[in-house]
Amino acid sequence: MKRTAMRTDLAVEIQELHKVEEKDGFSEEEYSAKGISVSRVKITGEQAALKLSKPIGEYVTVDLGESFSDEETHQNAVEVTSSEISRLLYGEKKTEETVPDVLVVGLGNRQMTSDAVGPVTVDRILVTRHIKNNMPQLYEQLGLNPVSAMSPGVLGQTGIEAFEMVKSVCDAVKPSAVIVIDALASRKMNRLCRTVQISNTGISPGSGVGNRRSEISRETLGVPVISIGIPMVVDAVTLTTDTIEMALEKIKKELSAGNPEIVSAFSAFEEYDGGDIIRNTLSPFDMNLVVTPKDIDRLTEKCAGLLAIALNKALHGGLEEEEIAALLGL
Amino acid sequence: MKRTAMRTDLAVEIQELHKVEEKDGFSEEEYSAKGISVSRVKITGEQAALKLSKPIGEYVTVDLGESFSDEETHQNAVEVTSSEISRLLYGEKKTEETVPDVLVVGLGNRQMTSDAVGPVTVDRILVTRHIKNNMPQLYEQLGLNPVSAMSPGVLGQTGIEAFEMVKSVCDAVKPSAVIVIDALASRKMNRLCRTVQISNTGISPGSGVGNRRSEISRETLGVPVISIGIPMVVDAVTLTTDTIEMALEKIKKELSAGNPEIVSAFSAFEEYDGGDIIRNTLSPFDMNLVVTPKDIDRLTEKCAGLLAIALNKALHGGLEEEEIAALLGL
Amino acid sequence: MKRTAMRTDLAVEIQELHKVEEKDGFSEEEYSAKGISVSRVKITGEQAALKLSKPIGEYVTVDLGESFSDEETHQNAVEVTSSEISRLLYGEKKTEETVPDVLVVGLGNRQMTSDAVGPVTVDRILVTRHIKNNMPQLYEQLGLNPVSAMSPGVLGQTGIEAFEMVKSVCDAVKPSAVIVIDALASRKMNRLCRTVQISNTGISPGSGVGNRRSEISRETLGVPVISIGIPMVVDAVTLTTDTIEMALEKIKKELSAGNPEIVSAFSAFEEYDGGDIIRNTLSPFDMNLVVTPKDIDRLTEKCAGLLAIALNKALHGGLEEEEIAALLGL
Amino acid sequence: MKRTAMRTDLAVEIQELHKVEEKDGFSEEEYSAKGISVSRVKITGEQAALKLSKPIGEYVTVDLGESFSDEETHQNAVEVTSSEISRLLYGEKKTEETVPDVLVVGLGNRQMTSDAVGPVTVDRILVTRHIKNNMPQLYEQLGLNPVSAMSPGVLGQTGIEAFEMVKSVCDAVKPSAVIVIDALASRKMNRLCRTVQISNTGISPGSGVGNRRSEISRETLGVPVISIGIPMVVDAVTLTTDTIEMALEKIKKELSAGNPEIVSAFSAFEEYDGGDIIRNTLSPFDMNLVVTPKDIDRLTEKCAGLLAIALNKALHGGLEEEEIAALLGL
Repeated sequence: MKRTAMRTDLAVEIQELHKVEEKDGFSEEEYSAKGISVSRVKITGEQAALKLSKPIGEYVTVDLGESFSDEETHQNAVEVTSSEISRLLYGEKKTEETVPDVLVVGLGNRQMTSDAVGPVTVDRILVTRHIKNNMPQLYEQLGLNPVSAMSPGVLGQTGIEAFEMVKSVCDAVKPSAVIVIDALASRKMNRLCRTVQISNTGISPGSGVGNRRSEISRETLGVPVISIGIPMVVDAVTLTTDTIEMALEKIKKELSAGNPEIVSAFSAFEEYDGGDIIRNTLSPFDMNLVVTPKDIDRLTEKCAGLLAIALNKALHGGLEEEEIAALLGL
Repeated sequence: MKRTAMRTDLAVEIQELHKVEEKDGFSEEEYSAKGISVSRVKITGEQAALKLSKPIGEYVTVDLGESFSDEETHQNAVEVTSSEISRLLYGEKKTEETVPDVLVVGLGNRQMTSDAVGPVTVDRILVTRHIKNNMPQLYEQLGLNPVSAMSPGVLGQTGIEAFEMVKSVCDAVKPSAVIVIDALASRKMNRLCRTVQISNTGISPGSGVGNRRSEISRETLGVPVISIGIPMVVDAVTLTTDTIEMALEKIKKELSAGNPEIVSAFSAFEEYDGGDIIRNTLSPFDMNLVVTPKDIDRLTEKCAGLLAIALNKALHGGLEEEEIAALLGL
Repeated sequence: MKRTAMRTDLAVEIQELHKVEEKDGFSEEEYSAKGISVSRVKITGEQAALKLSKPIGEYVTVDLGESFSDEETHQNAVEVTSSEISRLLYGEKKTEETVPDVLVVGLGNRQMTSDAVGPVTVDRILVTRHIKNNMPQLYEQLGLNPVSAMSPGVLGQTGIEAFEMVKSVCDAVKPSAVIVIDALASRKMNRLCRTVQISNTGISPGSGVGNRRSEISRETLGVPVISIGIPMVVDAVTLTTDTIEMALEKIKKELSAGNPEIVSAFSAFEEYDGGDIIRNTLSPFDMNLVVTPKDIDRLTEKCAGLLAIALNKALHGGLEEEEIAALLGL
Repeated sequence: MKRTAMRTDLAVEIQELHKVEEKDGFSEEEYSAKGISVSRVKITGEQAALKLSKPIGEYVTVDLGESFSDEETHQNAVEVTSSEISRLLYGEKKTEETVPDVLVVGLGNRQMTSDAVGPVTVDRILVTRHIKNNMPQLYEQLGLNPVSAMSPGVLGQTGIEAFEMVKSVCDAVKPSAVIVIDALASRKMNRLCRTVQISNTGISPGSGVGNRRSEISRETLGVPVISIGIPMVVDAVTLTTDTIEMALEKIKKELSAGNPEIVSAFSAFEEYDGGDIIRNTLSPFDMNLVVTPKDIDRLTEKCAGLLAIALNKALHGGLEEEEIAALLGL
């Protein structure tokens, strides 16, 4: 079947679905550090951006592996995530001058477990901007960086686009960089709650689950925007389409040995765009059904915890993890 | 494809999957009251019980329709649900003597949103057994029935089978009937959070999602057991298998017009047991992936609210809804 | 003892502590509607404002009575609260022209039960501004008013003053009025979760619990600001001072009959400023200890529920309560 | 004033209020380990038991100090708490034979933040009894001890006394020891969320906040019962009485210098039983008002976390903290 039904926010998955080459302005690099696999996808040309429907920029994917059942993996994943955030935030060379005032934004709906990872992460960020203003000596002494945070809520609860809210606060607070955290949709179940995507392209409208509005990016906010996301759901249409495809592949292999008419039947099949039929079959629920791990409540907590430690580390480089925890009262 | 992959707790769905006839000891009756559709499936013979892998007894299914967006439908659904519970609990003729001491049991894991509807319902049940013991005059004056309640938790959190815990408390409290409330799995997405199943067969091990243990029933507890469930999840394998089947049906129709070899390809297909392939494709996640409505958090609250009102009405027939709410402090 | 230790956000309580007269620019009016007692305190003169340390404006106090255990009282309290909100919002004569675009703001810390009533109320407000923008026909057809909402969080969690955040969003969204909802401190335990204060003066810094910052008012936002609050805590110093005073009064009466030296001892006592001693005794906990009802979790839900219904009624006058609930999906 | 109003669950506080001597069968020992102060009160004689209204047995109090803001203190407090639990559970000499099957019971109301520490702790206990039954090899290999757990809820929510529920489950599960965890009331604010009391006397009815029923103890269950509690509230009457007393003491000192009639006034005062007057002043709220830290939500989490780590360590001595966390999926 044709692939018109795919919904994913992950650059690594989009690229699996489309043919894109170096000459289009595309590169991919993989490395493993402390047992944690990382992929860095760079879109540098308009051609690649068009083919992938993704803005020019860098997309880093960190594989969390067994972080939530193995303490050592957890620590390594935190470290790798934190250093990738730092690299995109500060550039390769971090200096006194490159340490920005950061506004951290938790996107998503706090009341919907599968969408809450942004606000829950933000709850655990060590904010310090007010300490700078109100207790400058303590601030100096602790060697803090100015960090502020907000969770703008979702359109259905506020009547205000997240972008509008972030833009107006950004204009008032004047950070030198913005970090947005959001729940993503992935195509593969084995990426759920196991992958962090970090990019310097902001969050583009229309990508992913399709309910994002105006873009939150350097273009619209006027300062660098780093976006961090963890896939929390697989869209039901995508799951079904993918599974059908994989199942058909196996069935075809088993059934068609020496059976030419079946081969031809399957070719007709492959030309067929199954997305609409599946969408109709799932309708009217397709937009509102999600596939999640059973223990999504617990996993949201775990993912937010990991992201918050990695972010606090990246934002408050001078502090030990324990000092941050103590300041947070965690 | 063959239907070996289906997981459902709903009698109405099981029966769609198997051929069962009146002579097997099976009957089905449908009616509509105040715009609420109700189905009453009765398994009276061993043959039907075997074919459906469901114990002998009655299974009532109430279609909640638009109960969570239309106040009038909500009230009607409460009334119908309540009167079906009453009928199974008291028999057709309710007399002073038939009003039992009831122990209400909320099964499932309170920390897992999609499994929490039992405990959350129990939180809203008006319990009165202690009033009878401690304030007999007030008890008499309000015309209460003795109701107690418990949420035994799940095996992974207690190390104790729900059945063991219910059985031992039951032996101590000596109710004359037990009502168990549980989250169910359905096959059809449009039944999610929209259907209540009420039965007098207890909860059988092995039915449904497959993580239930020893049976909670009249046989094991020694008193009548009414079980009430609402489907909160669709199992991912089931969803995929079902969608494939429906999609294939449509594709077949469109593609095979005047195309005999495609017809024959599809016949081979239909003989094929797709369940294993799909399970393998989804593996190792099939047991831990669930398909839920996006707003499962809100819907769990709504479903528990509806069940609690219906149950309180059935258990405390002498009280107005407002009196119950006031006594509950809701 | 002298009254330097009192902390209260309620105008009716401040006025009990200070002598203020009509010629200072002060008036008080009480009425009862449907069994609900209402007090309207008006500060019209600088003199009264100074004496009471409260800005010029109107302060309405609605006594909720037994609203959370009696359904009829609840409905009456909702109606009276709603109509007092309307009066302050629209003026005595509501016309098409006077219906404003309203931004509803939930102040306070969502993670701290005793401070969460603002955000929890906002979660239940029917927001419609985005419907106007995205589905103008539906908006027209339902006869909605444009309402938006936000919960800016608290300084310790965001690093941004609530005022800064509200001001910047207000500048972007350009509502014609703002309603702020907040948890208050009262002096009297019997006002906890039983009183609503509505005023048209905004929220002044330094009043109440003392952790509010820059004023949110017509002066700072440029549009009318209605503030609504419910007392959720009694400050521990205030409780102790008050109880001592009341207890001493009774003890004095009983002990001093025909006992002149005791009378004189008590006079010395009355001149004494006990606040500091009590504060020192409670220190270092005085700022962080609160006296709350045991079931504050439940009462926060109930108070937020009542406020939300009253507000939705005031903001969406054309809709029935059931229609609002359905649109909210509640 | 006389001390009739005091409510406390802490042996160390009760003993401050009453004169009890060695010859009554009473001893107290204090030590400090790793900077953590511990007090061991032993009631060995009937005389002391009567005077203190506390059953014969040992009461250990661990001072948690700055455990929630200093990581090292936290670890030391966990270790000391864990080893005191072990000592009371296993005796001074722990052998293979003394390792019991333990049932851990979380008392209190999960929905009331200030009462929830028991159930929240139980949620984090590593239960293993079912692993022994269902996966004996894994159980053997990990070197686990059989642990089960339950949270029986409170009378108002279940209609069943916690004791009844625990007793019946205990009869079925047949543990060789029971550990009960509960929220306590203390008299001193600086003990709130900073003190753990561990005793081998079970939980006696009538002690503490006064809403406990039938005793959960070795006498009633037939196996050793260790009770663990953390003070989460100060009763409002107690706080007020205590503060008045302390404040009066200071006032008296300052006012009465060379003022004999004031001295005599105060003596009259001291003979006076202020409890009733204060209770009347606070009435009808005295039973339902509690004094808690503002951030009780966060502190309940922290206290439950600390207790769970200490308990898991005591119950699963062979496992590292990380192994326990991994098995728990935390």
